[in-house]
Amino acid sequence: MLAIEQTDPEDPRSLTWAEAPTPRPTTGEVLVKVAATAVNRADLLQAAGHYPPPAGESAILGLECGGVIAEVPADGSAGDWAVGEEVLCLLAGGGYAEYAAVPAGQLMRPPAGLPMTEAVSLVEVACTVWSNLVMTAGLRAGETVLIHGGAGGIGTFAIQLCRALGATVATTAGGPAKVARCRELGADIAIDYREEDFAEVLADHGGADVILDIIGAKYLDRNIRALAPDGRLVIIGMQGGVKGELNIARLLAKRGSVTATGLRYRDRADKARIVAATAAGAWPLVESGAIRPSVHRVMDIREAAAAHDLLDSGEVSGKLVLTIGGA
Amino acid sequence: MLAIEQTDPEDPRSLTWAEAPTPRPTTGEVLVKVAATAVNRADLLQAAGHYPPPAGESAILGLECGGVIAEVPADGSAGDWAVGEEVLCLLAGGGYAEYAAVPAGQLMRPPAGLPMTEAVSLVEVACTVWSNLVMTAGLRAGETVLIHGGAGGIGTFAIQLCRALGATVATTAGGPAKVARCRELGADIAIDYREEDFAEVLADHGGADVILDIIGAKYLDRNIRALAPDGRLVIIGMQGGVKGELNIARLLAKRGSVTATGLRYRDRADKARIVAATAAGAWPLVESGAIRPSVHRVMDIREAAAAHDLLDSGEVSGKLVLTIGGA
Ligand SMILES: NC(=O)c1ccc[n+]([C@@H]2O[C@H](COP(=O)([O-])OP(=O)(O)OC[C@H]3O[C@@H](n4cnc5c(N)ncnc54)[C@H](OP(=O)(O)O)[C@@H]3O)[C@@H](O)[C@H]2O)c1
Ligand SMILES: NC(=O)c1ccc[n+]([C@@H]2O[C@H](COP(=O)([O-])OP(=O)(O)OC[C@H]3O[C@@H](n4cnc5c(N)ncnc54)[C@H](OP(=O)(O)O)[C@@H]3O)[C@@H](O)[C@H]2O)c1
Repeated sequence: MLAIEQTDPEDPRSLTWAEAPTPRPTTGEVLVKVAATAVNRADLLQAAGHYPPPAGESAILGLECGGVIAEVPADGSAGDWAVGEEVLCLLAGGGYAEYAAVPAGQLMRPPAGLPMTEAVSLVEVACTVWSNLVMTAGLRAGETVLIHGGAGGIGTFAIQLCRALGATVATTAGGPAKVARCRELGADIAIDYREEDFAEVLADHGGADVILDIIGAKYLDRNIRALAPDGRLVIIGMQGGVKGELNIARLLAKRGSVTATGLRYRDRADKARIVAATAAGAWPLVESGAIRPSVHRVMDIREAAAAHDLLDSGEVSGKLVLTIGGA
Repeated sequence: MLAIEQTDPEDPRSLTWAEAPTPRPTTGEVLVKVAATAVNRADLLQAAGHYPPPAGESAILGLECGGVIAEVPADGSAGDWAVGEEVLCLLAGGGYAEYAAVPAGQLMRPPAGLPMTEAVSLVEVACTVWSNLVMTAGLRAGETVLIHGGAGGIGTFAIQLCRALGATVATTAGGPAKVARCRELGADIAIDYREEDFAEVLADHGGADVILDIIGAKYLDRNIRALAPDGRLVIIGMQGGVKGELNIARLLAKRGSVTATGLRYRDRADKARIVAATAAGAWPLVESGAIRPSVHRVMDIREAAAAHDLLDSGEVSGKLVLTIGGA
């Protein structure tokens, strides 16, 4: 098959479309012919040498894909999935390729009515946001949620999901255009973090019951300040550093919690649980139109390096999708 | 009535048994004639000026008591409780006195078969440990729990409860005598923190799924190191300081959480929920003998200052009970 190969480990942009061995599905896996994949910040980190795939998983980039099942195991270990079915796939790696071997628990039927180039853009963000906000933080209707980076891939999905779940949505973004985009998506409170201190804005609104954070250390103290009593901070990214000072007395006074999670290194049983819950909970909201995919641009897989450049530029609002074989 | 009065706000030991106004129960409260109370570290902090009672609550020391209902509201707002019933009470303050006004939701029927001097010693520790380990951390049978300060009031109860719930129990204590006490109470792994690094010991055992911490900042990083994947750290005390460095990457790699909670400032509805769950979950384990009260000494309420000195000395293992009217 063809797949993206990084020809120079020192050069994160040396991404070429080249011959690679077709993956061999093992027990419980199906082979998927990939029609489209999408770019995640994790792919940029992996290409830069900072985010190795979990042991035993594909070393090829790509954490999500959509396509058609090309092969199912003869021993029935992948359940009812059949050759020819359209699927979306949550991957530990291997999406930037013509074929991917995918554990059956990480397959989803796509929400009805979307082209594959839009549906594929939802996989990683939906599983991340659903698992963190609904399953981990237990966000409930009527609560206030603060979503950092509201104009990003995660953020655009999270704003719409939280609205659909009946939460009051506050969000941060950099600059007026991104702030406007967050408002369009349904944010009740959209904060330009270049102009305002989000902790003060949230304090004026009684605090956030739940915060979804992608910044880490730099925001830790302000996030604790922004929490409401019994508030839950969930950290999924560390764009602002790894080590931060935690004021335990402030956290205790609010009976608050800080959780940090990652999707990629979970075991397959855990991923299957998340994938099933996400498809059951989020896809109906996509089908009803309450959540729309935010695709910034669709590019060809051969332009992977340019797509990584573009995401790195900070000019992207939403997801970059890569098609394979001109899907 | 008579109650402990702190005659000099500058002197935490100026505790005298003196005339005070008998409290007037308001809607939903009963009046309890107090037979016994017990000393908490929070009482020492309050006497030292560091831990004020919540707004509207009694300024008298004492976070738990046991006694007999002396008066119920005529409007039925305290439910089915009747004059003459023996009760245990979780208090926001006011236990060091002949009478206390207690919200009905904070009353419990004592576990059968214990003298009041033992039963009273369970209230604050049981509500604290049950709410944090069972309700907040969701401790399950088969998990490993680390309890800091295993020989203290909280610790002696927590070790026994966790054993009864089917967890593997690790604990820390200072010196061989306290370590031996923890083993007697059922700890599987008892660590003398003066001799060993608990984080290393726990790492050798696969990590702690749940940690109950009373030290705070000084232990924050080691606690994160000691966590197992998906581990939950619950901080209820800050004897080792308030501000600590949180390594978010380390927390994320484990998908861990840090929660800090306090019982005293919760609202009454929350306390009622905890009190009901604790009585339903923990009292049967006391009645079966799986959990025994750890009373270090029973003293007269007139010796309150001496009792505070004794708790401060670090020589206490378990609870100090104070009787009122020679119960
Ligand atoms: N743990 C997990 O399982 C998991 C899963 C998926 C993603 N992630 C992480 O989540 C983060 C977001 O992912 P993504 O796919 O949404 O990436 P993305 O589309 O590149 O969005 C990142 C966003 O971060 C925002 N940002 C940068 N500095 C900011 C600041 N100081 N305050 C607020 N926002 C700021 C940028 O918005 P502005 O231009 O408005 O600043 C940008 O929209 C990444 O760090 C990613 O690695 C984690
Ligand atoms: N947040 C809440 O709702 C809540 C409720 C109740 C209690 N608390 C807090 O929980 C803590 C314990 O309460 P308690 O009633 O059990 O008090 P306690 O009976 O005085 O016990 C405190 C224990 O701390 C231990 N300790 C001191 N330094 C230690 C260290 N470096 N490592 C391990 N243990 C250490 C002491 O044991 P060694 O002699 O073995 O060191 C002692 O047994 C207090 O800080 C209290 O304020 C909080």
